[in-house]
Amino acid sequence: MKAAFLSKPGTIYIEDIPRPACSPGRVLIRIKAVGLCGSDLHYFEEGRIGDHIVKEPHILGHESSGIVEEVGEGVRGFEPGDRVALEPGVPCLSCEFCLKGSYNLCPDVKFMGAPPYPGTFREYLTHDPQFTFRLPASVSFSQGALIEPFSVAYNALFKAEAGGGKSLLIIGAGPIGLACLEMALMSGSAPVIVSEPNRYRREVANKMGADLVIDPKKEDLLAGVQEGTAGSMCDCVIEASGAEGEVMSAVLALKKGGSVAVVGMGNETASIPLTQLLKKEATIRGIYRYANFYPPVINMLRSGKIIGESWVSHRFDLEDIEQAIRTASDPHAETLKMIITIGKEG
Amino acid sequence: MKAAFLSKPGTIYIEDIPRPACSPGRVLIRIKAVGLCGSDLHYFEEGRIGDHIVKEPHILGHESSGIVEEVGEGVRGFEPGDRVALEPGVPCLSCEFCLKGSYNLCPDVKFMGAPPYPGTFREYLTHDPQFTFRLPASVSFSQGALIEPFSVAYNALFKAEAGGGKSLLIIGAGPIGLACLEMALMSGSAPVIVSEPNRYRREVANKMGADLVIDPKKEDLLAGVQEGTAGSMCDCVIEASGAEGEVMSAVLALKKGGSVAVVGMGNETASIPLTQLLKKEATIRGIYRYANFYPPVINMLRSGKIIGESWVSHRFDLEDIEQAIRTASDPHAETLKMIITIGKEG
Amino acid sequence: MKAAFLSKPGTIYIEDIPRPACSPGRVLIRIKAVGLCGSDLHYFEEGRIGDHIVKEPHILGHESSGIVEEVGEGVRGFEPGDRVALEPGVPCLSCEFCLKGSYNLCPDVKFMGAPPYPGTFREYLTHDPQFTFRLPASVSFSQGALIEPFSVAYNALFKAEAGGGKSLLIIGAGPIGLACLEMALMSGSAPVIVSEPNRYRREVANKMGADLVIDPKKEDLLAGVQEGTAGSMCDCVIEASGAEGEVMSAVLALKKGGSVAVVGMGNETASIPLTQLLKKEATIRGIYRYANFYPPVINMLRSGKIIGESWVSHRFDLEDIEQAIRTASDPHAETLKMIITIGKEG
Amino acid sequence: MKAAFLSKPGTIYIEDIPRPACSPGRVLIRIKAVGLCGSDLHYFEEGRIGDHIVKEPHILGHESSGIVEEVGEGVRGFEPGDRVALEPGVPCLSCEFCLKGSYNLCPDVKFMGAPPYPGTFREYLTHDPQFTFRLPASVSFSQGALIEPFSVAYNALFKAEAGGGKSLLIIGAGPIGLACLEMALMSGSAPVIVSEPNRYRREVANKMGADLVIDPKKEDLLAGVQEGTAGSMCDCVIEASGAEGEVMSAVLALKKGGSVAVVGMGNETASIPLTQLLKKEATIRGIYRYANFYPPVINMLRSGKIIGESWVSHRFDLEDIEQAIRTASDPHAETLKMIITIGKEG
Repeated sequence: MKAAFLSKPGTIYIEDIPRPACSPGRVLIRIKAVGLCGSDLHYFEEGRIGDHIVKEPHILGHESSGIVEEVGEGVRGFEPGDRVALEPGVPCLSCEFCLKGSYNLCPDVKFMGAPPYPGTFREYLTHDPQFTFRLPASVSFSQGALIEPFSVAYNALFKAEAGGGKSLLIIGAGPIGLACLEMALMSGSAPVIVSEPNRYRREVANKMGADLVIDPKKEDLLAGVQEGTAGSMCDCVIEASGAEGEVMSAVLALKKGGSVAVVGMGNETASIPLTQLLKKEATIRGIYRYANFYPPVINMLRSGKIIGESWVSHRFDLEDIEQAIRTASDPHAETLKMIITIGKEG
Repeated sequence: MKAAFLSKPGTIYIEDIPRPACSPGRVLIRIKAVGLCGSDLHYFEEGRIGDHIVKEPHILGHESSGIVEEVGEGVRGFEPGDRVALEPGVPCLSCEFCLKGSYNLCPDVKFMGAPPYPGTFREYLTHDPQFTFRLPASVSFSQGALIEPFSVAYNALFKAEAGGGKSLLIIGAGPIGLACLEMALMSGSAPVIVSEPNRYRREVANKMGADLVIDPKKEDLLAGVQEGTAGSMCDCVIEASGAEGEVMSAVLALKKGGSVAVVGMGNETASIPLTQLLKKEATIRGIYRYANFYPPVINMLRSGKIIGESWVSHRFDLEDIEQAIRTASDPHAETLKMIITIGKEG
Repeated sequence: MKAAFLSKPGTIYIEDIPRPACSPGRVLIRIKAVGLCGSDLHYFEEGRIGDHIVKEPHILGHESSGIVEEVGEGVRGFEPGDRVALEPGVPCLSCEFCLKGSYNLCPDVKFMGAPPYPGTFREYLTHDPQFTFRLPASVSFSQGALIEPFSVAYNALFKAEAGGGKSLLIIGAGPIGLACLEMALMSGSAPVIVSEPNRYRREVANKMGADLVIDPKKEDLLAGVQEGTAGSMCDCVIEASGAEGEVMSAVLALKKGGSVAVVGMGNETASIPLTQLLKKEATIRGIYRYANFYPPVINMLRSGKIIGESWVSHRFDLEDIEQAIRTASDPHAETLKMIITIGKEG
Repeated sequence: MKAAFLSKPGTIYIEDIPRPACSPGRVLIRIKAVGLCGSDLHYFEEGRIGDHIVKEPHILGHESSGIVEEVGEGVRGFEPGDRVALEPGVPCLSCEFCLKGSYNLCPDVKFMGAPPYPGTFREYLTHDPQFTFRLPASVSFSQGALIEPFSVAYNALFKAEAGGGKSLLIIGAGPIGLACLEMALMSGSAPVIVSEPNRYRREVANKMGADLVIDPKKEDLLAGVQEGTAGSMCDCVIEASGAEGEVMSAVLALKKGGSVAVVGMGNETASIPLTQLLKKEATIRGIYRYANFYPPVINMLRSGKIIGESWVSHRFDLEDIEQAIRTASDPHAETLKMIITIGKEG
């Protein structure tokens, strides 16, 4: 089978390797679609993220869907041919965070694509059935791959306390920001304001139905929020840009009593407006992946409440993964989420 | 000006009375649209609800919108011509419930239409500006009148803990049940199942987009819920029928850990499946009106997330209010929410 | 080693059986103290609780502490001689309830003492290290056994939303009610009112520091609550009696906006005051065991915030377990929690 | 009557002024005890806090208790001779924050002692009966004055999500930090760790029962927290020092999933460890005064759950207020909360 290996920063190649056997307690999956994530780009460019270091040829990819090829001994609930999405992080299930339901905080999670755990830019792999989810017939493999970023967005919306009729500012309209936008629009948040310096991404946000889209390079963000909320500022803010200074802006854009969810990884530290935080009794919450959100996101996709296609900009075959990465890294290209298709989508 | 008076059970008539003057601190409003509520029917038929007794000719009506005609001395934020919705309950603002933000629980609330406080089936009245809300240009007067039942629905959804990708059962597809349905669909709940014995109301629920609609007279409700949720039962249930035995059904339809919100007033007492409540660690919450929900509902109407027209079945002029009430009370008529229009809607 | 077997209702005997070997991944524990629970009595009398039926000689007991005798291969974090408490329910860790942190709702939990899973009225057993907790030196084995009922109480307090300066009514002053009382007093709830028909138990509640203790046979419970709260009724109620009609009383004793936690298993169904539930916007929650509460309860015992001794009435040796059960079942005896000591407590 | 006036920074004097009349709807109160707050010192030294500027001779003081002298027309629920505490902030009760129960966020709050609203360092004043609370006989006037800082502490504990068996770090053992400590100890938090550079204040924290007290100048705070929590770091942190860098420390001292409440006003901005915030999914909340907390704090004082005397260091007569302020400002003095007594405490 084919797999894409990152051997060192900037060097990725396709190689034929043996197809894995389906051991007891596992499911063997033929991968159909994998989203390209900002972290994949980061590994490609730097060869590491924090303590996760690419030391030997490594397979990236963790936003994945596919077809069950074989069901390991003792596994119930799956049959060959089942269309599935793969939740990429397999936690230990025995630490206190796992027991409490916050398995995204498990210190021993094995997260696909984060070295040393191989990812899904390949034709076959085995996975833990507990973190494999059947897709309804109406949900495409591309959408199956998008469940991962949608789960991040769901977590951000939840922790920003967004919802019915509350005003929301989303800072940054990259794939995560737009996943948040789509989910916010379909969760009743109103009005929803987006701030994004990139013209193309602003256009997409506009088309998707944002109530107001701001170019923070040309307009004052806080003045724009004030106008877009008839002076009351935002109940909720999601910081999805990771850009310098935006956590500060997020708190300043809040109404008293409001909440910020920070999903954009950026610098090690950030500055916050402390006096404002106190006077507003504002809340800031960090977001890290997700736990228990594949099932509700699948419910929303099944019912057509979220679609996901509007923030997919490109599709590439696995063979063209280097081109995909280079396009995604091109600051002049008009890009959003890219889907790597493996085999024909069907 | 004209006003509709209920003098005793079954007798309602229109009479000309002097138009009220706009005293300091008040706004004078020309009423344009008023929804007919089940409680109005109950007063018409019985002359009382609990301790609220119609002792002298009484004006019903509390789901209202209109136009500001005059702004009392000392009132800021309104101008003649403003299109507005009227929150009908004016609480004391000094008891512990008001101070805590639960002003719907205020023991001294003055609620329009509940004797001895006169309601809005009339051409003019003065209101407290604090409970008067400006309508966006895109929101019609009919929609303005529907903010009241939408606020009840918002309260029910919130207390049932409904939301993104969670399964929801709504028992009863009368106006409140359908307001809940519309808000649930626009808040990301999925799947949404409705149970309703009336064929016409089931059809409306279907058209509105419920994922599954059950006739509890012909099908077993719990079997239907099981099928509609692929065996997992519902995360959330809203009991909006007030019918005998439905609180019992609501708890039985829950998944472990789920929540029921009861909005349908029925008998004084109800039976619950206690052992199941404990084994499921289920929650039951009572719903009583709403507090602080006009602003978010207006935001949702402005953004088009909710519309409200699909569960309005009839419109009558104020002059025809008796016919409206008699139609609404006819068990053989196909009725949902009725709007009484006062003057031409514009 | 010795173990106590229930062979049929009313017949319990001590038998010598082989001591279990410590298999890989397990810890072998020498049991020191086991609390006698109402469910143990129920099995003794009826031979079953719901679907859990004593079909062959069965070992009861699940409120346990002991000493690590042997540490199985691959187990880290324990050494022989460690003093430990045993959380009795071992869940599957793979269902949706386990993943969400509500492992008490796991349908496949293996709960010690509930047939067919053997309990802890014996000298040795092996346990899952994940559900074995080290005891601080200052916590006795008896206290270690009480962590189980304290965890139920913690769950009840949490779900009744009890806490700093909120008024609380506890209905029923058996061991669980008194565990709730002790935890409530040490969690800042005030005032704390107890209702209990048994004179002895009322005296214990009084000595423990309840602000008011009511005999519901002689006084009107609601009148007493009214007096004890200066007319405002209770923010929170814990129903820990399981007696007929007490869920009804619990809701009636609530202040508007208040919450009831029901921990007392009683009849299959119960009647609730539905109109009051709605008008008060009250909440009723079922309690079923506990999840993730051994660590905080141990923290509270270590810091001396809770003690547990005040609601222990008797201690028996394992050999005298039948006498313990018969004493506990005697309606005329003055009993509360009984501790079965196994070996000398040290 | 006597009143203390601050005419300009550093100049405070006692002057005789006419005693106010009790207008309708008000209560006239003879002040008995007033706590000296850090904000009073700040006004004394700088003549302003933010936009609140001492422009003409101004009476400071807002932590107050006294005796009802006269009850204005139309006021119910009070009688002359009633012992009372005064909640100092009187909000507008008509803005959205007041309606939602967050009246501490009211932009139009009239807060006693914050210019231009006169405070309570005087013998008599009239107050809004809605924000006047009767004291139980067992609560002293000094304790009545401490309800204000206890309410801040209650808010901080609540927003730090502290409680039964959760580990808590309190940074700063000034009066607010120690009020938090007392309330934390009486709310079941365990273990409770305090960090404080001042030797005297560390000693008080120790005597009050903190499980561990750290001198951050001599020990590494994070190492101390690690030791005091057996390696697991803190579930909750309250930052009550306002010192540079302590918000950073607070987040670093958290366990994953933990929460920080910041109550210490310090610099306009602060630096936070952003990557850690995300990886821990930590929460930071700002604290600003309190809303609705006088009643539960009074309940806790009545039941003896909190006392308040242990963090009172000095008592001065009103005549000696300048000496009180100079003592409190002396960096070498061993000071905590100071109570200004007015008339004889009785």
